[in-house]
This record gives sequence, C-alpha cells and structure tokens, in this order.
Amino acid sequence: MRTPDEHRGLVESYVSELALTPELGELSQSIRYGLAGGKRVRGVICLATAEAAGAEPEAALPAAAALEAVQAFSLVHDDLPALDDDELRRGLPSTWARFGEGIAVLAGDALLTEAFRLALSYPTPAVARELAQATLGMIGGQYLDITGTAPDEQTLHRLKTGCLFSASVGLALWVAGVPEAEQGPWRAFGDELGLLFQIVDDILDDDGYVLSHGVERARALADEAAARAQDRLAAIDVDTSVLSDIVAGLAARTS
Amino acid sequence: MRTPDEHRGLVESYVSELALTPELGELSQSIRYGLAGGKRVRGVICLATAEAAGAEPEAALPAAAALEAVQAFSLVHDDLPALDDDELRRGLPSTWARFGEGIAVLAGDALLTEAFRLALSYPTPAVARELAQATLGMIGGQYLDITGTAPDEQTLHRLKTGCLFSASVGLALWVAGVPEAEQGPWRAFGDELGLLFQIVDDILDDDGYVLSHGVERARALADEAAARAQDRLAAIDVDTSVLSDIVAGLAARTS
Repeated sequence: MRTPDEHRGLVESYVSELALTPELGELSQSIRYGLAGGKRVRGVICLATAEAAGAEPEAALPAAAALEAVQAFSLVHDDLPALDDDELRRGLPSTWARFGEGIAVLAGDALLTEAFRLALSYPTPAVARELAQATLGMIGGQYLDITGTAPDEQTLHRLKTGCLFSASVGLALWVAGVPEAEQGPWRAFGDELGLLFQIVDDILDDDGYVLSHGVERARALADEAAARAQDRLAAIDVDTSVLSDIVAGLAARTS
Repeated sequence: MRTPDEHRGLVESYVSELALTPELGELSQSIRYGLAGGKRVRGVICLATAEAAGAEPEAALPAAAALEAVQAFSLVHDDLPALDDDELRRGLPSTWARFGEGIAVLAGDALLTEAFRLALSYPTPAVARELAQATLGMIGGQYLDITGTAPDEQTLHRLKTGCLFSASVGLALWVAGVPEAEQGPWRAFGDELGLLFQIVDDILDDDGYVLSHGVERARALADEAAARAQDRLAAIDVDTSVLSDIVAGLAARTS
C-alpha cells in the first residue's frame, strides 16, 4: 500500500503533465495556472480508496485529476470579482487577477469540461455521472453561499464542500469496480470527510464554524467527525489503514 | 418522418419541461432563463439525424437538450461584461443583466454540467465524450475571439460555431447506434453545417464574412456551403430529405 504522500506525488505528477485538448491553444496557460497548487486532498482520497478497494492506484489517476480539475474550476470562478472577489489564492494572484476576468471565466469553463473528458476516459459512464451530480451539488452550494440563502450551515457545507469529497470516494469505487450493492459502507465513510475538512478549514481561517460555535466547540466537532469517519472505515472489511492515516492527517492539519 | 418544425416542437417541450437537479435550488430560475428562447437549430439537427439514421427521434431528446444546454451556457458566459458585454440577448436582458454577474457565472456553470448529466443518461459514454470534445473546441474558439488571436476566420468559426454543429450530427449517430466505421459520410455532412450557419448569421447581422468579403461574396459562400452539405447528404444511402429541408432552411433563413 502506498502512503498518502506517495499518492499525492502520483496525483501531482499526473496533473502537472496532463495533456490538455489542443484546441484550447494559448488558453492552456491560464488553465494550468488555475490547476496548479493545492494539497490534492480529493485526488489523494480517490487513489487511496481505489487501492484499498483492490485497484491499482494508477488506474484512478484520471478520476483523481477530474476531481482536482472540478475543484480548480470552482476556485477560479469563485475568486472572480462578481463572486468572492479574491485577488489572491494561496499567496499568488488568483487566475482573474493574473490573466483578466474574461480569460478566467473561460479557463474555469475549460477546467470543468476537461474534468468530464478525464472522467469519460473510463469504459463505464458511472464515473462521469457521479462527477456531474457532485458538481451540480457544489454549484448549488456556491449559490446558497453568495446569496446568503442557505437554510443552515450544514446544508451549505454538505453541498459546497461535501459533495466533491463524497465523490472522491465514489469515483474510486466505480474505478475499482466495487458493485453498487457493496458501496454503502464506503459511501458512509466518504460522507464524513467533507464536514471534517470544512471545520478544520474554519479553525485554521478563524471563520465559519469558529464564528458560530467558538473555537473549542469547533475543535470538538472536528474530532467527532474524524471519529465517525474512523468508525465507518473500521466497518469495511479490507485494509483501510492508509485511509485512516488520511483522516488523522485531515483532523490534525495545520495548513 | 417528422418535419423540422415537428422536431423543433419536440425539443422545445423537452427543454422547457426539463427537471433540473434539485440541489440547484433557486439558481434554477436563472438557468431556465438562460435556456429559454432560440431556434433550437442544434437540437433539431440532432433529432432529424437520429431519425434519418433509423432511431426514434424521442430517443435523441436528452442529447438534443444537452446540445442546447451547451449552447445556452456559452451565450450566458459570452454575454458577461468581462467577455462580450452584451446587455441584450434576443431582445431581452441577458442573464447577467437580469440576475447579476455572479449568478450568471453560476448559471452558465450549471447549464454546462446539466448538459453532461443529460448526455450521460445514455448507456454508452460516447455521447458525452463527443460533447466534451466539441465544448472544448468551442471554448478554444471563444478564447481566439475575445483575444483577437485567431490565425484566420475559418479556424475561428470551425471552433466557435462548427464544433457544436458537427456534434449535433455526431451525438445523434451514437444515439442511433450507427457503427463508427459507417459514420464518415454523416460527419462530412455535419462538418458543413457550422460554416453555413455562421455565414448566414453574418449576412443577417451585417458582420464578419460580410465585412471581410462583401455581401455578395458572403451570399455566394453560403450557397456553396449549402450545396456541399446537400452533396454530402446525397452520398448517404438512406432517406435524408428532412435534413435536406433543414439545410435549405438554414441557407434561406431571414432571422
């Protein structure tokens, strides 16, 4: 079994060497810029789940890259002046600040479409189907966020963050050929990851859950989510030790 | 065989009654607004091709709606202030002018993703694969357009308009189960449609080909494209009379 860092290296190499559709021409610069950086958390979860479920992690690389491309698409569009108006992303100019707003709109569109091209490289359409559903949920979450119309915090995060984390597990299950009837326990695990990630994000940014619950309660909620994720893993009858390490890493991360 | 107008009615009913993903919530208003209106040319070509190739036209409705959703996505994003800055679309406020820029970005993203959800409703991933390639070509064309970096008029229109017209035929071939080895003559037909549509568009708008070639030469180029499309149809050994009517209608249209 590969370690989380080995999975991260695989995803990073694959994404950085990805051959984009030639017709995108010079737009590729902004697409690659938008796709660069980040911890590749979703890609790593996808590879580790695929390996735990019995596949070669390399087989899950196009699915992992598709998840990372959807995540990058959402950041490129969310950073636009008309949405979150962020000039910086991970300490560098955001895609629109670097290339202009019009190019950033198109770069995001291209990242989303390249994500489907990657997900469609599998013989089964199930990989791309799940990616489409997760992306639609994520867009619905972003709508609730920018309009301030979310009925509650949980609904917002389930859509905005949770959908793509759940899909990181779900896509790997299709890649590994896990029959639908046996996917339940895996999916119960995947459904805990988004909340864990979001609360820890809020603790690191002094935002969201920290503002609404205070830092101590937010920490307790994160630990509870991590414990539930570990319980879900323990209910799966294969070696899920690497996924368990990933959960521990998500709970303890400091950046 | 159904007439082009009957195909148009089928597409219009299907698109206007389309069930959007529930997670999109209130964003659905702007999505439906962006999807409304238009002549449904691409959807009609898709249904007529499917029927000529031996399928029930109804079987091609999700593919036709996917093509219309991609077209709508491209218009919603192209109209944005950072791109073409159009406040009007078909005599009504464009999506951003009606709902705001941020919502229009998300509505376009949702239209693109819904297009893949529709294309992925078929058992074969080939429908969605071809839609992804065509959409990437279209985005590449839009990049050439807004940056003014197209090497020539033909390359620009082949990407910006031609890709999705070619896919209108291509998607129908997969829906109808035409084996890849027999698709060549159909695809040769599809490849003529985008140019025909674009030149007539420019004649009606007094733009593009009219500016570069004069109106008489543009008319002659449109007629030549229509004649080539009819020749391609004549080389296909089934009843393509409805497609022939569509070509004649595209050449003679006045709006």
